[in-house]
Amino acid sequence: MSTNLPAEPAKLVIRCFSVSADGYGAGSNQDINNPIGVGGMALHEWVFPTRTFQKTHLGKDDGTTGPDDDFAAHGYENIGAWILGRNMFGPVRGSWPDDSWKGWWGDEPPYHCPVFVLTHHPRPPIEMKGGTVFHFVTDGIEAALQRARQAAGGTDVRLGGGVATVRQYLRARLVDELHIAIAPTLLGSGENLFTDLDLVSLGYKHTEHVATANATHLVLRKSS
Amino acid sequence: MSTNLPAEPAKLVIRCFSVSADGYGAGSNQDINNPIGVGGMALHEWVFPTRTFQKTHLGKDDGTTGPDDDFAAHGYENIGAWILGRNMFGPVRGSWPDDSWKGWWGDEPPYHCPVFVLTHHPRPPIEMKGGTVFHFVTDGIEAALQRARQAAGGTDVRLGGGVATVRQYLRARLVDELHIAIAPTLLGSGENLFTDLDLVSLGYKHTEHVATANATHLVLRKSS
Repeated sequence: MSTNLPAEPAKLVIRCFSVSADGYGAGSNQDINNPIGVGGMALHEWVFPTRTFQKTHLGKDDGTTGPDDDFAAHGYENIGAWILGRNMFGPVRGSWPDDSWKGWWGDEPPYHCPVFVLTHHPRPPIEMKGGTVFHFVTDGIEAALQRARQAAGGTDVRLGGGVATVRQYLRARLVDELHIAIAPTLLGSGENLFTDLDLVSLGYKHTEHVATANATHLVLRKSS
Repeated sequence: MSTNLPAEPAKLVIRCFSVSADGYGAGSNQDINNPIGVGGMALHEWVFPTRTFQKTHLGKDDGTTGPDDDFAAHGYENIGAWILGRNMFGPVRGSWPDDSWKGWWGDEPPYHCPVFVLTHHPRPPIEMKGGTVFHFVTDGIEAALQRARQAAGGTDVRLGGGVATVRQYLRARLVDELHIAIAPTLLGSGENLFTDLDLVSLGYKHTEHVATANATHLVLRKSS
């Protein structure tokens, strides 16, 4: 069907980004045993039981439905490429010692599309099972976004994290939509999403919220 | 009835302390027209419609019931004295130019008990209608707590705010219980409750949470 309406431009979105009540998106001391830092896993407890998580990450055909699952499912809708910070891709720092590290997610990561990993250290792309291809981008956040947009071919690009990467993109006003899930827990220390980041001055407005027993979901949009 | 159980010692509690999703307990630029800083009033929208607020602040006999009202009502239960920071008492800074400022709350403030106001500038007590007496304490937060405990005679002392005062008492581990209401809104700037305040290391644990359409209520307790 042809229409005269201009197509809505592809967006850069952050979805299902979990923070503690005190604003931390990750705990301290990330390492191979603590991918989200010490205590960080608690931030994501709202998503684990959902049907979407159970299916996407564990290949199971059960799980909860309702608003938590709706937000989890929406996180994968109309997404044609992802961007991840280096630390979200893995615990390896500095130059790549070898090509053995292929992400936290096993042979078949839950992305199923091109994933652009920000790094200062070049590395050839890695093709995984199920359509995920990790590309390593060394020329900054805008270049990564440009490549991801191209790869997404008109669908949206999702920025996965971690906290430092999300903060960079927000400061640059490159994020169109941000869904935060506030977990009813405290971390006390770690990487804080909000410190010295004035989202109101950057033009973000709260447009929707839904509270469940497990998380308070907040959707922020950049005003044009 | 006499019992052999030791009486639970009187607690210092913070209740109905509202913060934005990004952690601000007050907006910027507090003045006589913006008692909670610019935009700060939005933090408290969850409480205004409640039966407790309508009755306590407006003398009306209506309002909503449910969890928001339960938290609001609990805020006044078993409280024998209050502590307020100077800025929560009013917009006047420095030494008192005269005795005309008597708080934001009109002739009959909603406290109905002794209220200890922290200040560096001495001033005689002010007796208000309905049992509220404002006492001005110039020798610090521990002295204020001691006087408030004495006045409360075995019931609890409630610390009203503002943010800076709450942070001082939390850092000193003097607060036994803290109920935070996270409002589904952004402030972007102002006075942040959480910045550089590691509640976990200070011994606070999240013990209860209830989410409503208007706020996410979180109760934290100091572990003994």
